[in-house]
Amino acid sequence: MANDNGDGPGRSVTSKVLAVLYAFSPDRYQLSLNEIAAQTKLPLSTSYRLATELVTGQALERATGGGYQIGLRLWEVGALAPSTATLPEIALPFMQDLYEATHENVQLAVLNGGEALYLEKLRGRRSVPVKTRRAGRLPLHATAVGKVLLAYAPKSFVEDVLGNGLQRYTPHTVVAPGHIRAALAEVRRTGVAFTRDELSMGVTSVASPLLDAGGNAVAAMSISVRSTGADPQRLAPAVRTAALCASRALRARPALAVTGTGRGA
Amino acid sequence: MANDNGDGPGRSVTSKVLAVLYAFSPDRYQLSLNEIAAQTKLPLSTSYRLATELVTGQALERATGGGYQIGLRLWEVGALAPSTATLPEIALPFMQDLYEATHENVQLAVLNGGEALYLEKLRGRRSVPVKTRRAGRLPLHATAVGKVLLAYAPKSFVEDVLGNGLQRYTPHTVVAPGHIRAALAEVRRTGVAFTRDELSMGVTSVASPLLDAGGNAVAAMSISVRSTGADPQRLAPAVRTAALCASRALRARPALAVTGTGRGA
Repeated sequence: MANDNGDGPGRSVTSKVLAVLYAFSPDRYQLSLNEIAAQTKLPLSTSYRLATELVTGQALERATGGGYQIGLRLWEVGALAPSTATLPEIALPFMQDLYEATHENVQLAVLNGGEALYLEKLRGRRSVPVKTRRAGRLPLHATAVGKVLLAYAPKSFVEDVLGNGLQRYTPHTVVAPGHIRAALAEVRRTGVAFTRDELSMGVTSVASPLLDAGGNAVAAMSISVRSTGADPQRLAPAVRTAALCASRALRARPALAVTGTGRGA
Repeated sequence: MANDNGDGPGRSVTSKVLAVLYAFSPDRYQLSLNEIAAQTKLPLSTSYRLATELVTGQALERATGGGYQIGLRLWEVGALAPSTATLPEIALPFMQDLYEATHENVQLAVLNGGEALYLEKLRGRRSVPVKTRRAGRLPLHATAVGKVLLAYAPKSFVEDVLGNGLQRYTPHTVVAPGHIRAALAEVRRTGVAFTRDELSMGVTSVASPLLDAGGNAVAAMSISVRSTGADPQRLAPAVRTAALCASRALRARPALAVTGTGRGA
């Protein structure tokens, strides 16, 4: 401990350790040493040393067939994050009700880093395949949960998002700022947002906000179904009801710690 | 990067960083700086520096009211652990079926570090409160999932567990090695394990294994209900059916990476 000289001038060792961990992503959940080095811009020798130490500490695991992957122990400690545990704990029973009533994908997302971050997801055996996953991120403007979160966000934040230029994922992605503003006004009026084929062709989603005592949307609950034959107007009351029930449960919990879901872009 | 002198003789900085993260637990999800220092046996100054760097890197967050908690970003990266994602992805739809048929707590656990590690949990609005939580750990001998995992574990492992001396959680916890061996033989014969008031008074659980192509129990699925009025023999076919369905789906997946669920004590 006398040799605790971890951070010289330049990057601290802590930041390098985190850089190695953060090199992994949903698209890259297994990485070779070369990929870690490329991703972190650390020398190969440093990458090797840190990866080896992280394997020793069970934060990483050696993948079958070489390379590295995130370890079980990191998942365990990550699961202790209060900002990801409290909301799902409250909302999950109502999500299960919604699943039971529909047998479709049911999701819960919060606004984080200018994206929709999915805290929870239920998936049926015959539900339409969707891009959502627990701990995954999707764009605000092309998802129903995102439109809900935008509708209840401060105007300046919405204008920032619109001003950044919006990606078109399908021919149906709404990217015109004027159209989005009108849609958000409608979401505020009705409490329900829709997307049809905007992120993935063939997928229709309906979302509704979880509102705290101050009327802020702390999260959005959604259902995603096959566009073929889907009647979003029929799904809307079910989603809205589940979200209202969850909102009521939320407000009954004093001093809910929903930190880390801030609106920073 | 020229100053990459992170690990002197003694503990590496990586191991100290992980020690700070691992100081958090389900019982201690918020820690003060003093508590981090006490838990990690690091000097207060080092603890402060590492905690501050971890907050900068979003692995930790400042808790409202002081102290630290695990950050959203660490949860996100932890969720990339393949060993915790693959099994729940396969099993969740069948767990949802079981929930729908019973409206009780439904759990999925694997053997890890000599304990039952819960990968997934569904909880109904009126389900009996239980100690299980996603990413939580419970003892093998006092849980239904644990008895399943023990029943299919190598004999030497079982004898190690029995030899370690078993904790009694309630007057009903079975701790006599002879009784446990007999119960495990019965589990192997029937494919179902039971606990009644063994970990928590008032809670009865029924579990069944998820078997891979080699007949190994890679996980156990369970249901937990109020002991009052519970008829475990009636629940058993439902749990067994859901577990068999999940096993079938599991075997249909080639090369399933269920690493990190090893049987080390």
